[in-house]
Amino acid sequence: MFKKVAILLAFVASVAFANTDANQSSDVKINLVKNIKVNHKMTKESKACVECHAEKTPGVVADWKESRHAHVGVSCMDCHAVNADNPMASVEVHPKGSDTHVSMLVSPKTCAKCHEDAYKEYTQSGHARGGMQMYANPAMVKLMYHYEGADHPEFKMSPDITGCAQCHGSIIKLDANHKPTPETYPNYGIANVYPDGSVGGCKSCHTMHKFSIAEARKPAACASCHLGPDHPDIEIFNNSKHGHIYNAEGHTWKYDAAPDTWDVPDFRAPTCAACHMSGVGETSMTHNVSKRLKWNLWAPRTELRTGGYDKAVETFEKTGKINVGTPLAGHPEGPEAARAEMKQVCKACHTTHNTENFFIMADKHIQLYNVYYDEAKKMLDDLKAKNLLLDDMWADEFQDVFYHLWHHEGRRMRQGAAMNAPDYAHWHGVFEVKNDIRKLRKIYKERIETGKVH
Amino acid sequence: MFKKVAILLAFVASVAFANTDANQSSDVKINLVKNIKVNHKMTKESKACVECHAEKTPGVVADWKESRHAHVGVSCMDCHAVNADNPMASVEVHPKGSDTHVSMLVSPKTCAKCHEDAYKEYTQSGHARGGMQMYANPAMVKLMYHYEGADHPEFKMSPDITGCAQCHGSIIKLDANHKPTPETYPNYGIANVYPDGSVGGCKSCHTMHKFSIAEARKPAACASCHLGPDHPDIEIFNNSKHGHIYNAEGHTWKYDAAPDTWDVPDFRAPTCAACHMSGVGETSMTHNVSKRLKWNLWAPRTELRTGGYDKAVETFEKTGKINVGTPLAGHPEGPEAARAEMKQVCKACHTTHNTENFFIMADKHIQLYNVYYDEAKKMLDDLKAKNLLLDDMWADEFQDVFYHLWHHEGRRMRQGAAMNAPDYAHWHGVFEVKNDIRKLRKIYKERIETGKVH
Amino acid sequence: MFKKVAILLAFVASVAFANTDANQSSDVKINLVKNIKVNHKMTKESKACVECHAEKTPGVVADWKESRHAHVGVSCMDCHAVNADNPMASVEVHPKGSDTHVSMLVSPKTCAKCHEDAYKEYTQSGHARGGMQMYANPAMVKLMYHYEGADHPEFKMSPDITGCAQCHGSIIKLDANHKPTPETYPNYGIANVYPDGSVGGCKSCHTMHKFSIAEARKPAACASCHLGPDHPDIEIFNNSKHGHIYNAEGHTWKYDAAPDTWDVPDFRAPTCAACHMSGVGETSMTHNVSKRLKWNLWAPRTELRTGGYDKAVETFEKTGKINVGTPLAGHPEGPEAARAEMKQVCKACHTTHNTENFFIMADKHIQLYNVYYDEAKKMLDDLKAKNLLLDDMWADEFQDVFYHLWHHEGRRMRQGAAMNAPDYAHWHGVFEVKNDIRKLRKIYKERIETGKVH
Repeated sequence: MFKKVAILLAFVASVAFANTDANQSSDVKINLVKNIKVNHKMTKESKACVECHAEKTPGVVADWKESRHAHVGVSCMDCHAVNADNPMASVEVHPKGSDTHVSMLVSPKTCAKCHEDAYKEYTQSGHARGGMQMYANPAMVKLMYHYEGADHPEFKMSPDITGCAQCHGSIIKLDANHKPTPETYPNYGIANVYPDGSVGGCKSCHTMHKFSIAEARKPAACASCHLGPDHPDIEIFNNSKHGHIYNAEGHTWKYDAAPDTWDVPDFRAPTCAACHMSGVGETSMTHNVSKRLKWNLWAPRTELRTGGYDKAVETFEKTGKINVGTPLAGHPEGPEAARAEMKQVCKACHTTHNTENFFIMADKHIQLYNVYYDEAKKMLDDLKAKNLLLDDMWADEFQDVFYHLWHHEGRRMRQGAAMNAPDYAHWHGVFEVKNDIRKLRKIYKERIETGKVH
Repeated sequence: MFKKVAILLAFVASVAFANTDANQSSDVKINLVKNIKVNHKMTKESKACVECHAEKTPGVVADWKESRHAHVGVSCMDCHAVNADNPMASVEVHPKGSDTHVSMLVSPKTCAKCHEDAYKEYTQSGHARGGMQMYANPAMVKLMYHYEGADHPEFKMSPDITGCAQCHGSIIKLDANHKPTPETYPNYGIANVYPDGSVGGCKSCHTMHKFSIAEARKPAACASCHLGPDHPDIEIFNNSKHGHIYNAEGHTWKYDAAPDTWDVPDFRAPTCAACHMSGVGETSMTHNVSKRLKWNLWAPRTELRTGGYDKAVETFEKTGKINVGTPLAGHPEGPEAARAEMKQVCKACHTTHNTENFFIMADKHIQLYNVYYDEAKKMLDDLKAKNLLLDDMWADEFQDVFYHLWHHEGRRMRQGAAMNAPDYAHWHGVFEVKNDIRKLRKIYKERIETGKVH
Repeated sequence: MFKKVAILLAFVASVAFANTDANQSSDVKINLVKNIKVNHKMTKESKACVECHAEKTPGVVADWKESRHAHVGVSCMDCHAVNADNPMASVEVHPKGSDTHVSMLVSPKTCAKCHEDAYKEYTQSGHARGGMQMYANPAMVKLMYHYEGADHPEFKMSPDITGCAQCHGSIIKLDANHKPTPETYPNYGIANVYPDGSVGGCKSCHTMHKFSIAEARKPAACASCHLGPDHPDIEIFNNSKHGHIYNAEGHTWKYDAAPDTWDVPDFRAPTCAACHMSGVGETSMTHNVSKRLKWNLWAPRTELRTGGYDKAVETFEKTGKINVGTPLAGHPEGPEAARAEMKQVCKACHTTHNTENFFIMADKHIQLYNVYYDEAKKMLDDLKAKNLLLDDMWADEFQDVFYHLWHHEGRRMRQGAAMNAPDYAHWHGVFEVKNDIRKLRKIYKERIETGKVH
C-alpha cells in the first residue's frame, strides 16, 4: 500500500523531471544536442531519417515504430545526434547537407539522459564491471592465455570478440572514420567501455531498436549470456519448478506493466528479472542485479558479499583506469539485507516457513562446496610451494581439473542449489566436484610421492 | 464410439460419487473435516482465508482464483483443514479464534478424496516408489556415498534435498511445530512420504495452487525432472519429430479437454502425457505412467516388464516399511499388453506398418545395449572375484566407467531409441557406450595381466 | 521494388504453369496418375479416403484439413495414387474394389509435380547428399565401424536407423509387399533415396500432413537434426542475440507470408530459414541451403566453397550410383557471391559497417581453427608414416581426440563464430580445441620418443 503511493509519486516526479531539465541534474558530463521533449508529431528531420532508413535498414525502423520511444516522440536524432567533438561523431555530417554529426554507437550515457536511475543502479552492479574485469585482471589475462590467437598475430582478438566480449563487452576502439574497429565491435556485451567514457550495455537486455521492458523481463533476455558450462543459469531455470511453470504457460502472461508495478498475478512464476530486479511485493525494482545476492557464487571460493556497491565505473570515471571493480559488493547494507530483500520476492507465493527452509539448505550446499574447494586449494598451494606445477596451467592436469572444479562444476553446484535446480546442484554439480576432488587427490599423491610432474 | 459412451457414464458416476459419499468408499483412512460439496458461493470462513492471504501470499490466491477448484467451490479449508490429531496439524488453531487446525502440507490422500482413481493409478506406478527407493535400496545408498555431505555432519542432507529429493521426493519429517524440517521439505518430488502415511506428488505436475490439467499435459511439466545426463527425456523429445512439431506450434494447441477426451486434433503431435497417460484413440487415460512400457530402460540391464503393478505403496501401507517397490512392474497384463496399448497411441497418426517397423528397430537397439552391458558386467564380476576392484567405486576407474555406461549413456541409448531421438540413440548413446566398452576392456586387460589396480 | 514486380510475375507464371502442364515440362520421369487441378470440391473418391481415415488415422486427416493443400483441392490420391508398375505401388488395389494402387511412401518427385523449383534447388544443395554420403564414403563407413551392430548381425542396422538415418535419410528398401523395410524406414531424414529413384526429404521440415510453410520457417524445424555435440546449431541460435529475441517474442510473429515475401517486419530477428533460405531484402528465396555459405564448416579442414552446385543427385540420376556429391559446392558463382548474398540478409537490420566488422572477425576465428587443425593433421600423418597408430581408431587415444577436435569441438568453434554464439565459439569451441591440441602434442611426443603406442 505504502509502496504503491510511493511509486505513483515517484512516477509523477520522474515524468516532470524527464521533460524539464534532466541534463542539468546529471552529474555525468555528456554531449547533448538538445533537451528531450515528448512530442508526438515527428519533425521533418526525423521523418527524413525514417523514410530513408525504412528502405536501407527496414528492421531498425520497424522495431522503432513499435517501441515506447516512438510513441512518446523519441526518434533517431534524440539518440544518434552528437556534437562534432564527440569522439564517436561521424567525420562527415549526416544526412548530407545538414549540420548534424551522428554516432552509430549510442552509449549508455545517452540512455541515462532520460533513464538516470536505471543507469546509476546499473553502474553500481556487478554487471558494470563485466568488460573491464576481463582486461584489468592479470589472473584472468593469464587464464585467457589459452587463446592461441595471442600467438598468431594475424588472428589476434578473434577469440575475444567472437567469444568473451559478446557477453562481457569490450573496450571499444575507433578507426580513422570514428567507427568501431572489428576487433572490438559489434558485440552485445553487458559492459562495453565506450569511447565517450560511458560504460554499459542497455541493449544487451532491451534489444535495439525496440528497447522493450517486456523483453527484458523474459528469461530469454538473460539466456543468451547466462548459459553454458560455467554459468548455466537458463538451464538451471528450466530445471527449476519456476522454469517448469514458465515454460508451460509463460507465453500467456503479461510483461508490459510499468516499472515497479510488475507483480503477481501478472506472472505465475518468477522469471530471472522478477527475482533479481523487479519490484515484487514490498521490494523496489533495481537495475543493480547484485543487490539481492547474499553470496558471490562466481568466485573460486564462496564468500559473503559485503555492503556498498561495485566501484568499477566510479573508479574508471575518476581515474580513467580499467579496473576489476568490487566483486564482493552486493546490497548497500550487507549480505543479510540482500537475502531479506530476496525473500520478500519468494513470499509473494511461498510461506515464510518454506522460504526459510529453502535457504537454510541452499546455504549449506553452498558452504559444502567451500569444503571441497579449500581442500583442493590447499593441495594446489602445496604443489606450488614444492615446485610441482607446470608453467602452462592448461597442460598441467592438476591445474586443469582445479580450474574446472571451481569455474565449471563448482559454480553449477552452488548456483543450482541457490535456484533450486536439482540436476545442477547434483549431477552437474556436487557429483562432478566430488569426482574432481578424487582426481586431484590422486595426482597430488603421485607428485608428492615421486617429486615429479608426470 | 464405445469408449465415448463409457467415458460419459463414468463421468456421470464420478460426479455423483464425488458429491455424496466419497469418504465412505475409500479404503484409505484419512482425516477429513467435512465432505466436499460443490458450492459456488464462498463461505464466510473461506472469504476470510482469501482476503488475508491475498495480502500475505498473493500468488497463492491468484493461482487458486483461476483454478478449476475455485470454480467448483473447492477452497482453502477443503484441503488444508485437518483434525487436531493429524500429525501435520498446526499446533495452534488457524485462523486465531477459530476451532480449526490446518496443515501447511497437503498430502495426496487429501487429493484422493475427490480424485480417487487418479491416486490409485498413481500409487501403482513407478512414480510412486521414487522417494522410498532412494532410501530403501542399500545399493543406491552406496551409490549416494559420493555425497560427501555424509562426511560433514554439519552439511548432511544438503546434497539430498538440493538434489535427488527435489525430483524423487523425501521421507518428510516434522519439527516440534508440526512443520516440515528443512532437510526434507520443501521439495516438489514425485513421491514424498508424508507424515500421515500418504505417498505421492500430485503438485509435481499440477503445480500449486492452480492444479491445472492443461499444465500437466505439456512437456514442461515433465521437463524439470526428466532431463540431464541420466534421463534426458525432454532433450530426447526436443530431438524427435514430435518435439519439432510441438516446439513449432504447440503453444497454439488445446490442452483443456476433459480427462480421457483429450485427443487429436487437440494436438498435432503427442506430448509426454499424450503417449504415456492420456486417453488417445481406444486407450483410456491413466496416472500409472508405467502401464504402457514394455521394457524397464532405467535399470542397469534392460528387462521386459512383468505383469501386475508397483507395490511400493501397498507394502508401505501394510507394513510401514520404506521399500524399493517393484521396478519391473508395467502393464497388469504384461509387456505385450503394454506395447499394444502404446501402439494404439501411435496409430492416431501413423500407419500400422510404420508403427510396427519403428518398434522392431527400437527394440533391437535396446537389446543391442544389453550385449554391451553383459560384456561389461562379466568383466566387473571377474575383477570382483579376483579382488581387483577398489572399495571406493568412485575412485576406481573401472567402476566409474561402468556406472556411466549404464546409468548415463546406456539410458540415453535406450530411451533415445524408444522415443526416436537420433542424437541420443547415437551420439550421446551407443557412440559413448562403445567408447566406454573400449575403456573397460583396456583397464580389465591391464588388471588381469598385472594382477594390480593401477 | 524490382524484386517485388519480379515476384508477382513469377507467381502468376507458376500458378498458370502448375495448373496446366507441369508434367510435360519436368525433365524427371515420374509416374503420374493424373494432372493436378485446383478444385475446391472434393471428389467422391477423396471423400471416401477422408471418411475412412478420419476413423483409422485421425491425426493424418486433421492435419490435412488445415493444410494449404486441402484448401486448394489437393487431396489424398493426388499424392498417394501411383501406377501399378511403380516399385512402391501397393500389391493390392486400395481401396478395395477400386482400380487404384497407392504408395504409402510419397517421394519428393511427387512434391515436385507442383513444387518444381523447390525440388530442383533442393537437389542442388548439400542437404540432398545427406543419405548417399553416409553409405558412399569409405572413410565415413570406417568411422561408423564403431557401430557394433556390425558385429552382431541380429541387431545390424539398429544403430543406423535409430541414429544417423533419422536425420540423414536412408536408401529405402522394400519388402515383398512393396512396403519399406524396418531397417530403412520410417525415418524423417533430409535425403532419403526412394525406390522410385527420387531423393529428398520435404517432410523433414514441412511435416506430414500439414506441409506448412510457417513451420519450416521456425527454428524448431531445423532443431530436431541440427543439434548436439557435432553441430549444435539450435544451441548456437539460442546463444545468439537472434535467438534471444526469437525466444522472447517469436511466438507472436507472422510466418505465413507467401514464398519470397516473408521479410521484416514479419519477424524481428531472423530464424534459420530467414538467413539461409528466405527472400529477405534483395535476395531471392531458395531451397538450396548451401547457396549463401562462403565456407564448408563441416569438413575436417575449413575450405572456401566452390562455384557450381552439389551433384550428388545429378550423378545418381545419370549413373544410379550412390555417391558423396560435391561437399564444397556453394553458390553457383563462388564463395564471395555466397557471402554477398548472406550480407544482404544482415543488412535488413544491421549497418554495412557492423556487418563487415562481424564477418571479418568470424572469418578470422574460422581460419584460426585451421591453424590448430593443420598442426594436428601433421602429427597424425607423421604417426601414420611411422606406424604409430592403432588399427581401431576408437581405441587409439590420439585418433579419438583428433576426431573430436574436428568433428565436435572444431565444428562448434567455427559455427559458433559464424552465427555469433559466444559460448560455442569459445567454451565449447576454441577452449576445447586448444585442450585437444595439448593432449595430442603430449601423446605425439610420447609415441615419437618411445617409438611405441601406449
